Amino acid sequence: MQTKVTKLLNIKFPILQGGMAWIADASLASAVSNAGGLGIIAAMNADADWLRAEIKKCRAMTDKPFGVNVMLMSPHADAVAKVVVEEKVPVVTTGAGNPSKYIKIWKEAGIIVIPVVASVALAKIVERVGVDAVIAEGCESGGHIGELTTMTVVPQVVDAIKIPVIAAGGIADGRGMVAAFALGASAIQMGTRFLVANECTVSEAYKQKVVSAKDISTVVTGRRLGHPVRSIKNHYTNNYAKLEADSSYSNAELEELGIGSLRRAAKDGDTENGCFLAGQISGLVKKQESAQDIIADIMQGAEKLLNKNWNNL
Amino acid sequence: MQTKVTKLLNIKFPILQGGMAWIADASLASAVSNAGGLGIIAAMNADADWLRAEIKKCRAMTDKPFGVNVMLMSPHADAVAKVVVEEKVPVVTTGAGNPSKYIKIWKEAGIIVIPVVASVALAKIVERVGVDAVIAEGCESGGHIGELTTMTVVPQVVDAIKIPVIAAGGIADGRGMVAAFALGASAIQMGTRFLVANECTVSEAYKQKVVSAKDISTVVTGRRLGHPVRSIKNHYTNNYAKLEADSSYSNAELEELGIGSLRRAAKDGDTENGCFLAGQISGLVKKQESAQDIIADIMQGAEKLLNKNWNNL
Repeated sequence: MQTKVTKLLNIKFPILQGGMAWIADASLASAVSNAGGLGIIAAMNADADWLRAEIKKCRAMTDKPFGVNVMLMSPHADAVAKVVVEEKVPVVTTGAGNPSKYIKIWKEAGIIVIPVVASVALAKIVERVGVDAVIAEGCESGGHIGELTTMTVVPQVVDAIKIPVIAAGGIADGRGMVAAFALGASAIQMGTRFLVANECTVSEAYKQKVVSAKDISTVVTGRRLGHPVRSIKNHYTNNYAKLEADSSYSNAELEELGIGSLRRAAKDGDTENGCFLAGQISGLVKKQESAQDIIADIMQGAEKLLNKNWNNL
Repeated sequence: MQTKVTKLLNIKFPILQGGMAWIADASLASAVSNAGGLGIIAAMNADADWLRAEIKKCRAMTDKPFGVNVMLMSPHADAVAKVVVEEKVPVVTTGAGNPSKYIKIWKEAGIIVIPVVASVALAKIVERVGVDAVIAEGCESGGHIGELTTMTVVPQVVDAIKIPVIAAGGIADGRGMVAAFALGASAIQMGTRFLVANECTVSEAYKQKVVSAKDISTVVTGRRLGHPVRSIKNHYTNNYAKLEADSSYSNAELEELGIGSLRRAAKDGDTENGCFLAGQISGLVKKQESAQDIIADIMQGAEKLLNKNWNNL
């Protein structure tokens, strides 16, 4: 299946893997790219040396296109922005803000630039500065979220800009892919489903949390700090929510609580005190399998739907 | 287009109109039913006499099937539950809870019963007590909302039950309809788009608020009381949000603030102090037109999409 996005990225299937902090490393990214999607390494808050090493590892494991997600609020964002140029990374996605200041150096280096946006206003801004596509992400996704849902943000962004739109948030099977296409998207990005890929190096406890999740297993915390985050309910989120609702706790104390919580989930598998970022679609993700099997399942599900008789629903 | 839901309800198009309090009266419901959808009168907190009169008005304006939405938290719920039996209303939808206690009298009266659900757990419970279908509603919808989005609640409910699923939340055009079908729904329910129908008797100020809304024009208030509600941002919601975040204001004071706010929006058109319930898809709703033209636009948009070449997105 060819779309504007498969052509733009020179990939086989219209599927991108989300740039999940502490999760999306060279191992997962190369596996997704080898399977015909676009694998993405999350630069998160890591420094330039870590990212450079991860890019080299990814190159050693795949000769297919891959990307780096630049987290714009990272203290290392400026250095990371240079590394992707020096290492000639084919694709950069950006999160947590407006990437306008880096567009010039990235486009001069021939990098395909695709910001994650959560509203029409940011989609229009980044189109104007010359990005190649946008990822319109709904608030059902895991991690940092906006306000709009996938069902509402995708068609409104599609109507507002001319460049291709990739849908993210709440997509984990062929049904979600076809729904995204119906809303006007030319590809999908998935995080949660790839988190449980065999090639993902995240802790086994994390994968178990996702495959055993129900529809209502996630919760949003951090609204008070202006940075809402979706993760799987556990002792950590219950405690965080309690302190967040208690005005005798300062914002600084809340920030403190967050430090190290992603690492504790992803690396240590600390089910009590880790913050297990994951989307509302976790309830649909039932098993661990290879990145290749995940992509095959999505594509088969989508093709079956697209060929069905829609007159007998 | 025939689906399980058009056959169940004996309607021409797989489109239900949401049971919006202070908005969905006999005028709107009969117009939607005459146009081939299923119009629905909202019983809201009104008493049995009001509802009986509205049902009679609706019958005078249409010979097509229509429904009544029973708000289970209404102080008049028991009386209203009897009126729909006495008046032989063809279809009842329910909101704000578990309708199990009324299922027996409704099914004995031959009424088709369709609860609104926001999670897999409630969908399974109501299937077990013998309802005919469910409306799986995402939190992008206007009014009282749950936690899950349409993109995530619909496929998870579809997988969990055998009866037909109607998708609601974030749907206002043919793209949304086809997305809902892809996710496994057999029909859609729309509120916000029907709110601006010519036949809707809501204040002109309300319709203007919806047609001029942008993607980020809605906000959720009332989380502290356990009854989150989505409405269009204005002086009322700003003030409410401020007091809600201020722990020196009691829950009782917050409840007080809500009294009369829906009526002020729907009847008085009080743009400052009314609570204008509406969904995130308001940004896509650009004009007032007849219920018939709304339904024709949705169906044409959906059919165009279903016949398109999906290989060139």
